[in-house]
Amino acid sequence: MRDVAIVGIGQIRVSEYWDKSLRHLAHDALMAALKEAGVERVDAVVVGNTLAGLLTEQGHLGALVADFVGLRGVEAVRIDAADTSGAAAFRWGYMAVAGGLADVVIVVGVEQMSERSAEEVQQAHTSVLDQEYEGIHGVTPNAVQALLMRRYMHEFGVKHEEFSAFPVTAHQNAVGNPNAMFRRAIREETYARAGVIADPLNMFDVSPICDGAAAVVLCPAEKVKEYARGDKAPIRVLASAVATDAVAVHDRKDPLFLEAAYLSSHAAYTRAGITPRDVDIFELHDSSSIMAALSLEACGFVARGQAVHFAREGGIARNGLLPISTMGGLKARGNPLGATGVYQIVELVQQLRGEAGECQVHHARIGMAQNLGGTGGTAITHILGTF
Amino acid sequence: MRDVAIVGIGQIRVSEYWDKSLRHLAHDALMAALKEAGVERVDAVVVGNTLAGLLTEQGHLGALVADFVGLRGVEAVRIDAADTSGAAAFRWGYMAVAGGLADVVIVVGVEQMSERSAEEVQQAHTSVLDQEYEGIHGVTPNAVQALLMRRYMHEFGVKHEEFSAFPVTAHQNAVGNPNAMFRRAIREETYARAGVIADPLNMFDVSPICDGAAAVVLCPAEKVKEYARGDKAPIRVLASAVATDAVAVHDRKDPLFLEAAYLSSHAAYTRAGITPRDVDIFELHDSSSIMAALSLEACGFVARGQAVHFAREGGIARNGLLPISTMGGLKARGNPLGATGVYQIVELVQQLRGEAGECQVHHARIGMAQNLGGTGGTAITHILGTF
Repeated sequence: MRDVAIVGIGQIRVSEYWDKSLRHLAHDALMAALKEAGVERVDAVVVGNTLAGLLTEQGHLGALVADFVGLRGVEAVRIDAADTSGAAAFRWGYMAVAGGLADVVIVVGVEQMSERSAEEVQQAHTSVLDQEYEGIHGVTPNAVQALLMRRYMHEFGVKHEEFSAFPVTAHQNAVGNPNAMFRRAIREETYARAGVIADPLNMFDVSPICDGAAAVVLCPAEKVKEYARGDKAPIRVLASAVATDAVAVHDRKDPLFLEAAYLSSHAAYTRAGITPRDVDIFELHDSSSIMAALSLEACGFVARGQAVHFAREGGIARNGLLPISTMGGLKARGNPLGATGVYQIVELVQQLRGEAGECQVHHARIGMAQNLGGTGGTAITHILGTF
Repeated sequence: MRDVAIVGIGQIRVSEYWDKSLRHLAHDALMAALKEAGVERVDAVVVGNTLAGLLTEQGHLGALVADFVGLRGVEAVRIDAADTSGAAAFRWGYMAVAGGLADVVIVVGVEQMSERSAEEVQQAHTSVLDQEYEGIHGVTPNAVQALLMRRYMHEFGVKHEEFSAFPVTAHQNAVGNPNAMFRRAIREETYARAGVIADPLNMFDVSPICDGAAAVVLCPAEKVKEYARGDKAPIRVLASAVATDAVAVHDRKDPLFLEAAYLSSHAAYTRAGITPRDVDIFELHDSSSIMAALSLEACGFVARGQAVHFAREGGIARNGLLPISTMGGLKARGNPLGATGVYQIVELVQQLRGEAGECQVHHARIGMAQNLGGTGGTAITHILGTF
């Protein structure tokens, strides 16, 4: 297997785009990444997207995007792995380059949700659950996460207001990220007063409905000089790992332990030859405060039941033991589903290059991104490092 | 890159399954393939599916299927590349094994359409077209293919009834395939009298709405003896190639030339080190008679405008120059969209092993399968051979 380098990144601000269609969003991120990388050939385009079929009845996104950006003819596919579509698309690109099947691959994650009503989006997003056992009862992803949060509070004696550390940190970090959707800090009181969505989950526990696109260019490390004429330092992909769990939460051995996140992160540690202590930044899947807490625990950063305490003590802050959501995370940068996994990679690259501006985590050498599908039915972990 | 071997296959009969859900169909094909391969470990499950999101609002099929077959925890993703989802899933598995990222991978293509009305299926299937430029006018994939057929008839002076060789051959071949949906031969007169669907396309020009699932087990050729305890001869993957074209037909240089099929097949010939003359069997994408004709021409088997003549002369018959749709093809075995690409691979394996029964093509050493997305926006080609 060949070492894989990320030689270019591109992103648009996460927002609501009423004037552009899906292919335009993908185009803007993709062309920015191509330009930065300075590559003249592209062997494959991989598109990560979750809901375009359900929201706009547009499938066949691989060919559609490749053609629209002027790459008609090249290999192109769309990957749909629920909310992990972005990370799964990145893995396709990684496999193709690592395995020697392609030299230059561009991965783009794109999602457009804001054209539809919140009800339509919620309904469509329920496709990431087990429809025959969860969706049939009318529950949505937020509803399942609310049940998990309630159970966590009961099991570990945590009060709802104590979760505030997650959204407060995310929003604080987003202030310095020009590509974040919400660039406003919030206070604990704001969180405490927020309207309830699915008791106990409130408006500031969950990530927003939004549009976005992010892209990365990959090539073999040994051929960076040959293909990439850009002036950015390449970033190395140290590990890529996918694991799964029961999609329906009630089917899991322990609903409060994200088995897929555990398996996927630990496989990634092994492949990268590191331990959790070596991770300087963790871009986790904070689709809600409770998922952030469960991720920290499953990936071995804190003991069971300790994540909220760890967060309140500043462990997740930019200068903490393990900075998370450093550019705002799903909560404040935004969670355009199939693009999220690529945004996480793009932001890690910014951090590892030292180009994260006000969001910069100092001395960051190793970063980990983890994308979760549904309520943890799939977990895809990537670890990046400097060369 | 490592040589990749197919060490097990499984399939269910293409039919209408009112008593089983999607995960059951996938289970039945997948378990049959695992059993035949005699493998004890599985590193990854790749699920090809096209319409489950739109028809049943069920996404997240990778984790869902893996868990349901007792493989909870393993890497699992779902690939959606329009009608080429099955072939794209196979390519993911091929890349993982060839590149050394996984040793034993099971690929399953599954689709369930019959629970919905024909109108709902047509509407959902329109997602493989360009919605903003084709779908918006109300055209369906069949309607676009009808336009192509009319143009072909005009351009090359071919009468509609002359296309009969394609469905007649496909139905004849399906008689001997216990897994085909339509095991009845048809006559030219039946074709001539069939009801029109989208003028000039008639009922016997197009493939049916149906349910199905097919699976294959892959492992590195060098490790077949270590992992696969089955008693079947392994089949070798000689080439895998993806190419694209404009999704919207009006955007193509020449609507009667399937550029993606040309690029994909010729890349595959190069990778396999063969020419079209070396191909003994071609499982092509006969979603309609016109697509079969265009595929034969784009892949270099016959000159432009000659495909219908070639078919009428018996070139595509089991004992012809280039047998196609040897187990019934999309037309008569059936076209369960996201499963079709895997059925094609499974059938080639049956042929190359000499286990195709009444459908057996004698002295078949090299087989090619080509899966098309939409009306040729994506083409994925695989070439298989004996060791």
